[in-house]
Amino acid sequence: MPTHFTLTYKDTLTKARLGLLQTPHGVLETPCFMAVGTQGTVKAMLPRDLREIGCQIILGNTYHLYLRPGHELIRELGGLHKFMGWDGPILTDSGGYQVFSLAHMRKITEEGARFQSHIDGSTHLLTPEKAVEIQEALGSDIAMVLDECIPADAKRDYVRSSTERTIRWAERCLQARRRPQQLMFGIVQGGLFEDLRRSCVDALAALPFEGFAVGGLGVGEGEALLQSIGAFTVALLPEDKPRYLMGVGRPQDILAAVQAGFDMFDCVIPTRNARNGTLFTLHGRVNIKRAEFANDGRPLDQDCGCYSCRHFSRAYLRHLFMAGEILSAQLNTLHNLYFYQDFMKRCRQAISTGQSISWTEQAGLAVS
Amino acid sequence: MPTHFTLTYKDTLTKARLGLLQTPHGVLETPCFMAVGTQGTVKAMLPRDLREIGCQIILGNTYHLYLRPGHELIRELGGLHKFMGWDGPILTDSGGYQVFSLAHMRKITEEGARFQSHIDGSTHLLTPEKAVEIQEALGSDIAMVLDECIPADAKRDYVRSSTERTIRWAERCLQARRRPQQLMFGIVQGGLFEDLRRSCVDALAALPFEGFAVGGLGVGEGEALLQSIGAFTVALLPEDKPRYLMGVGRPQDILAAVQAGFDMFDCVIPTRNARNGTLFTLHGRVNIKRAEFANDGRPLDQDCGCYSCRHFSRAYLRHLFMAGEILSAQLNTLHNLYFYQDFMKRCRQAISTGQSISWTEQAGLAVS
Repeated sequence: MPTHFTLTYKDTLTKARLGLLQTPHGVLETPCFMAVGTQGTVKAMLPRDLREIGCQIILGNTYHLYLRPGHELIRELGGLHKFMGWDGPILTDSGGYQVFSLAHMRKITEEGARFQSHIDGSTHLLTPEKAVEIQEALGSDIAMVLDECIPADAKRDYVRSSTERTIRWAERCLQARRRPQQLMFGIVQGGLFEDLRRSCVDALAALPFEGFAVGGLGVGEGEALLQSIGAFTVALLPEDKPRYLMGVGRPQDILAAVQAGFDMFDCVIPTRNARNGTLFTLHGRVNIKRAEFANDGRPLDQDCGCYSCRHFSRAYLRHLFMAGEILSAQLNTLHNLYFYQDFMKRCRQAISTGQSISWTEQAGLAVS
Repeated sequence: MPTHFTLTYKDTLTKARLGLLQTPHGVLETPCFMAVGTQGTVKAMLPRDLREIGCQIILGNTYHLYLRPGHELIRELGGLHKFMGWDGPILTDSGGYQVFSLAHMRKITEEGARFQSHIDGSTHLLTPEKAVEIQEALGSDIAMVLDECIPADAKRDYVRSSTERTIRWAERCLQARRRPQQLMFGIVQGGLFEDLRRSCVDALAALPFEGFAVGGLGVGEGEALLQSIGAFTVALLPEDKPRYLMGVGRPQDILAAVQAGFDMFDCVIPTRNARNGTLFTLHGRVNIKRAEFANDGRPLDQDCGCYSCRHFSRAYLRHLFMAGEILSAQLNTLHNLYFYQDFMKRCRQAISTGQSISWTEQAGLAVS
């Protein structure tokens, strides 16, 4: 198996690390944040604007693309990269999370997950093999195995049997692979039970995955458990493979996870919050709706280099939001995604100069 | 009075002409189309994208900006150009048309138009002096006088008395001017009565306006009357001033109006239709929602140089529309506004090479 991941730096005081991950559509520097492009678009962003803000890799949702417009159609049209006009790396999830959070009437069996579409009520069966087939049709650079995302309050017996099934599903995903150039990541489940997390890691680490994700966190267990289970699990994972903390994305959570040794992140927070008028800065979060900004001629963040902050005032951003203008979503999303990319860049710089701890303290205070 | 408008070419077979209009924020080539930026934004367009597609001048709506966020606020923040990040020319209308089409409980007197805001029901009085004051606060390059837009089915007696009042309002607007660098255009009313149109032109042409608009057309009178009254009226206007046909904007209507001697146009058609999934091409209009495009990998228009047509397929544009994605409005608006700018550019080229008639025939067939 070729080596896709190169560790370029290991912090001595924390478990933070720097790496390079080689994909068919280019190399990405880790730790990195993946913007979420659910339906074949990062909402409100032109692909060229994603490039401009330094976006290295985006995430596509298998569940959504399978239901609409369909993975066969996307394959016929040349794959997801061509379809959405994005020639950088793409990671696709397996659809499992959305089956559990969006679909109706879901039923899990050993075979897979049966569910009804949230769009038209049609019935579907998502098996490990089907999840691989869909992601191969989409042609993403990194595919994820099908797993069951377990609720934070699940009982131990259920977590154990579900996690064992997730391991069997992971093996079936590997066996279903037909596109060796596409990287495949296993997903560690195990809920909030350290021994179950450990046995899941043991089983998956023996399999030829190009990377590993930790799933089932950031689903309501609270910040303390997120951090402790996350740090416990990531420390068990092979050092020479990328480690991805799925769906966790508040800046302060990313900081803690980077220090624990995670390399990759994704979350809808920057894009969804943008559309709701909540903007991130290193001076704290800003609710642009607030009346105090009505006549504020200053940029949102005078230290920010994004297009929105270089050209527009808080008063204008508030006006657009209050008037319900599409441009509000565009400028706010541009800013929040720029913030996240810049945040990860600063994070990498701090690690490379041995200042991970001081940067994390300083940034953590600012964004909390 | 300085000369702002230079006629650079007059067609010999039609009344089409080419000109250059000097404004405080730059020169524009006529005939030209103005994209509508109602609430301080051309919907779904970053200002830099407007520049890229060759947008020369945009239109701002006095009625909307007066009500929200308020002209005083925009003045305090440095004017509309700075507020919305657009450093090219801006024309503002007077608010009259929106008072008649959007506001509630409107009442016209000699003093002005009293109305209730469509946003919060608050009561306002828009006088000619107020319309000038608002537009001076906005700092637009071209201001329009306050006029009453008369319905197409109005009786002759009403049209006469309204048009006479519009002339008196035009005089009051000139007297209220405090910003001589801002161009001001008079507006010819007179409904569908040629003699009333003529007497209105006679009265306005004697006044020191930098240009003239023809209003009250494209409001339901039908294509034949639009063309005949438009052509009749524009022929009466001074040759050495720009002539603006307000609110008329189907490509075929623009073609006819250019041949009749009009220089400037505005309309919400390209932007509104874009959001509804109707796209313009020189091969005809396209309803991108249609099922036939679901698996169509070709660009919307292979001859179009816009960002959307260079990067995306019809299948993708349809997918975005069906999925309700914001990017649908962005890519469709980019295309339609590019089409309109390109259409006007081809129109100017045809005039400059003496091919206005053949181009109009050919393009007219394509877009009708």
